[in-house]
Amino acid sequence: LDYQHVQVPFEITLWIMLASLAKIGFHLYNKLPSVVPESCLLIFVGLIMGGIIYGLNDKSPPVMDSNIFFLYLLPPIVLDAGYFMPSRPFFENIGTILLYAVVGTIWNVFGIGFSLYGICQVKAFRLQDVSLLHNLLFGSLIAAVDPVAVLAVFEEIHVNEKLHILVFGESLLNDAVTVVLYKLFRSFCEMSTIESVDIFVGVGKFFVVGLGGVLVGLTFGLTAAFTTRFTKDIRVIEPLFVFLYSYLSYLTAEMFHLSGIVAIIACAMGMKRYVEANISLKSHTTVKYFMKMWSSVSDTLIFIFLGVSTIGENHEWNWPYICFTVIFCLIWRALGVLVLTFFVNRFHVNTITSKDQFIIAYGGLRGAICFSLVFLLPDFHRKKLFIAATTVVILFTVFVQGMTIRPLVDLLAVKRERESAPTVGEQIHIRFLDHLLAGIEDISGHWGQYYWKDKLEYFNSKYLQKILLREYDQPKSSIVLLYEKLERKHAIELAEAGQLGHAPSHPSLLQSGFLCSNNNRTAITDKKLEDTLNPDVLENIQEILARNLYQIRRTGPAYNRHTLPGEAEPMEHAEEILILRHKSL
Amino acid sequence: LDYQHVQVPFEITLWIMLASLAKIGFHLYNKLPSVVPESCLLIFVGLIMGGIIYGLNDKSPPVMDSNIFFLYLLPPIVLDAGYFMPSRPFFENIGTILLYAVVGTIWNVFGIGFSLYGICQVKAFRLQDVSLLHNLLFGSLIAAVDPVAVLAVFEEIHVNEKLHILVFGESLLNDAVTVVLYKLFRSFCEMSTIESVDIFVGVGKFFVVGLGGVLVGLTFGLTAAFTTRFTKDIRVIEPLFVFLYSYLSYLTAEMFHLSGIVAIIACAMGMKRYVEANISLKSHTTVKYFMKMWSSVSDTLIFIFLGVSTIGENHEWNWPYICFTVIFCLIWRALGVLVLTFFVNRFHVNTITSKDQFIIAYGGLRGAICFSLVFLLPDFHRKKLFIAATTVVILFTVFVQGMTIRPLVDLLAVKRERESAPTVGEQIHIRFLDHLLAGIEDISGHWGQYYWKDKLEYFNSKYLQKILLREYDQPKSSIVLLYEKLERKHAIELAEAGQLGHAPSHPSLLQSGFLCSNNNRTAITDKKLEDTLNPDVLENIQEILARNLYQIRRTGPAYNRHTLPGEAEPMEHAEEILILRHKSL
Repeated sequence: LDYQHVQVPFEITLWIMLASLAKIGFHLYNKLPSVVPESCLLIFVGLIMGGIIYGLNDKSPPVMDSNIFFLYLLPPIVLDAGYFMPSRPFFENIGTILLYAVVGTIWNVFGIGFSLYGICQVKAFRLQDVSLLHNLLFGSLIAAVDPVAVLAVFEEIHVNEKLHILVFGESLLNDAVTVVLYKLFRSFCEMSTIESVDIFVGVGKFFVVGLGGVLVGLTFGLTAAFTTRFTKDIRVIEPLFVFLYSYLSYLTAEMFHLSGIVAIIACAMGMKRYVEANISLKSHTTVKYFMKMWSSVSDTLIFIFLGVSTIGENHEWNWPYICFTVIFCLIWRALGVLVLTFFVNRFHVNTITSKDQFIIAYGGLRGAICFSLVFLLPDFHRKKLFIAATTVVILFTVFVQGMTIRPLVDLLAVKRERESAPTVGEQIHIRFLDHLLAGIEDISGHWGQYYWKDKLEYFNSKYLQKILLREYDQPKSSIVLLYEKLERKHAIELAEAGQLGHAPSHPSLLQSGFLCSNNNRTAITDKKLEDTLNPDVLENIQEILARNLYQIRRTGPAYNRHTLPGEAEPMEHAEEILILRHKSL
Repeated sequence: LDYQHVQVPFEITLWIMLASLAKIGFHLYNKLPSVVPESCLLIFVGLIMGGIIYGLNDKSPPVMDSNIFFLYLLPPIVLDAGYFMPSRPFFENIGTILLYAVVGTIWNVFGIGFSLYGICQVKAFRLQDVSLLHNLLFGSLIAAVDPVAVLAVFEEIHVNEKLHILVFGESLLNDAVTVVLYKLFRSFCEMSTIESVDIFVGVGKFFVVGLGGVLVGLTFGLTAAFTTRFTKDIRVIEPLFVFLYSYLSYLTAEMFHLSGIVAIIACAMGMKRYVEANISLKSHTTVKYFMKMWSSVSDTLIFIFLGVSTIGENHEWNWPYICFTVIFCLIWRALGVLVLTFFVNRFHVNTITSKDQFIIAYGGLRGAICFSLVFLLPDFHRKKLFIAATTVVILFTVFVQGMTIRPLVDLLAVKRERESAPTVGEQIHIRFLDHLLAGIEDISGHWGQYYWKDKLEYFNSKYLQKILLREYDQPKSSIVLLYEKLERKHAIELAEAGQLGHAPSHPSLLQSGFLCSNNNRTAITDKKLEDTLNPDVLENIQEILARNLYQIRRTGPAYNRHTLPGEAEPMEHAEEILILRHKSL
């Protein structure tokens, strides 16, 4: 027997296996996951495992290594989050998300830090040796909402898209703030005197860490897109590039002390549309599937290790400090959300309701990032107290808040996620409004969201697509892409059900290309309508849209910022369109 | 800048990136890969990289770590090989493959070892300090044909299936022999006296190492199949189990000093049919794609590292020893193939032609396994000579033989791989013959290949499928499965071409289920025929086959070994079939 030789890969494989089997086990009993979130169950498994290891060895079980967490377990989850991030609601709410992530987190850090320092001044609690800086350091690590924990819980409760993106986006983007504050206070703890210039440097670092992360991520993302231009002959390594470049962006950002999470999200969001256009359908399936698989395993391992690491002798128990930590975490978050939302609601038309505010405050779960950060603290005599407090906060938020949030969402009747995908009709409507608003903003000279979106889209189609896409003909309308996707999905479903040969009466297989056959179906759902919308009709719609909305607005002389009115080409276009109109009249 | 922190994952990612980019680079120039095999190009890239590192640092570049090779780089390639192994030609030629792998390898080891010992006795060469045991040890590592190198070259030259499986199968299965002989001679080198009992133990180990590997592999493979029964609700981690269990089988086998390669192949071949039936189509695509991707990257890394490791000061040059090693490797392999094929051809109807023999002998490429084994040798004063000789043999076989084998195959007009997949007609014919031959063997009491195959199939459908498959109704005929696969593929192709709505006149979309619409197409190819075979017709064929061939033969009283003739159930079946026949008459 030669165990030494294979120990490392063998044990890693066994842990992953345990995690996967635990996941299967939960899903065998259908009732369990509907009551208790999976994250709680996994922590519970971890606690049992830790107890067994502790009982057998009579020493503390191994603690989750912070390096392993940050280098290997976290990136897959964040990559998955970034890649599947719904970009429209994200960018529509980017202001609010940034407000919560930056101002909200700073508010929480200082709120928790100063209040805990206040508690430490009470003589009866015997905590007077914990300095203000240490309290602020602790605040900086305990304040940040954890994306892994949030994702695990919010994926199961299906609240509406906006609410989801607000909480989840905040948990992702607060990484930059957490990194800066944590490193700042840690270096302050080691300095003898703090000068005011250090504080200004710290404030400047926010922007460097955040924007630097975005820059690194976008650079790698666009390089990835460019690389996939040349993989036509070796389809089989296409998925690799998606993973390699994202991971490199994360590592590079970490190397330069920038926010790795922000970098990997920027990378994933930046590369997505170009990579998807370049790679084959099977590569795309593999990318999506493997990303989900990987993040799911990482997620499982993190929660199991959280449980395992809880057991042991790393803790120093102090009732007042730990209880007040939990209370302050709740109070300051609630206050922060109330105050920030007040300002948000004054400037936005689409306000955040008080129900939503409650869920945002209540959904501020803490998780493995805090846990890893607290273990990375330099050794000092109260470190074990901080570890204990962090563990309790994590367990409290994951178990108590995580388990009660679903009943609360039901009780408050919070607006849920819509079940079905938007119909083609809605898509057309949304696109139409986008163009209309961009036009209005363009005319009125207001540099709003739609104006920038249009600028970006113009830059994208004029330069980026030509460089990054392999087959650059005409930018396909998203409606046509959606249609193709639906049709493909439909074909596979038909083939799997064995109906391709048997059910030719299905409308999408009809020879004549019109919806007439649907007339005899009275109760037709939206979903069905999508499936049955005929390609001819769609092409028609797209043609009308493309000719009458997009090109006129873009090339019309009155309100165009991209070309001068006198230029020849757009004039020709305009003339052509006029003639076309004449004919149709 | 904090490079230390991210060094390990960063450098691994960069190496993989380099490998992938090199692969893209070669394929951009279409002419290059058609002349020079990719393995040669990659070694060349490695040589350049090694030269650069050597030039910059002025010390030997890092050598490929044998542990990394055996634990991380080799398993993906072997898993891929085992999973996509065409099982029919493999089992049809298993006897020949085993003969080449076991007897052939032993022949080569002792041939090369003793002849090199002879060379060492020539005083002029100054090699008298190399003992017989060391020569045999060297022979044991240099004799084995390398699966990675063979696969890299043979995948590009497309020889016929039988020839391919003979060379490739040998390269995989000789691992057991190599492991045993290498470890045996290495322990002999360290022993002071060798007793004859040690040699007998060594011979016994062959069986333990080989059959133990098969047993470990099958155990893990069937467990994997059993596990995928329960993944219906979490499709996303299905692919993981395929990889985890295969890797565990490899590691477990290595841990017990069994043949890891044999284990992983047995695992992959054992699990394949059950896993594929249990998991979803997308999971299956991911498994296949990721396996190919992973093995392709491993393969690339291995060849690049081979190149890098060649540069440096690890070598002791001795012209006669190195030249004679290359010559003896060629001569003994050629002789071995000639002698063994002589015996094979006497007992087999389907003989191996002299052209095939030449390609088998010439295709005996050496690769990274030899290289890793030679670095694992215990330190002794001539180790550097062995390293140099191994490097030269590898480079000679990969470059000279690898680059000339394609022109030779053209020149000799070796029978090529058939371009198209077998038609449904052929499939039916093959199945029919299988049943017929099993019946004949059963009646005549000859325990041949078909008899065992039938027994296995019976055991499979009676027990294994019921335990391992989730949806066990009727064992679907392979023809029906093939049909479903083709139909699915077809549907996707149609959808991608956008013809699903436009081309309903395609026969497989026809409402009436007959081939009549094909009559007006005169020049219909086999491929088309497969696509257009109607499900009704196929079901008919399958029904006829299932009722008249399979069940009668299985349950008929005259030549059945599975049940006693007097039993009630088979008699009922037989009666039922008699009645059915009566009716049809």
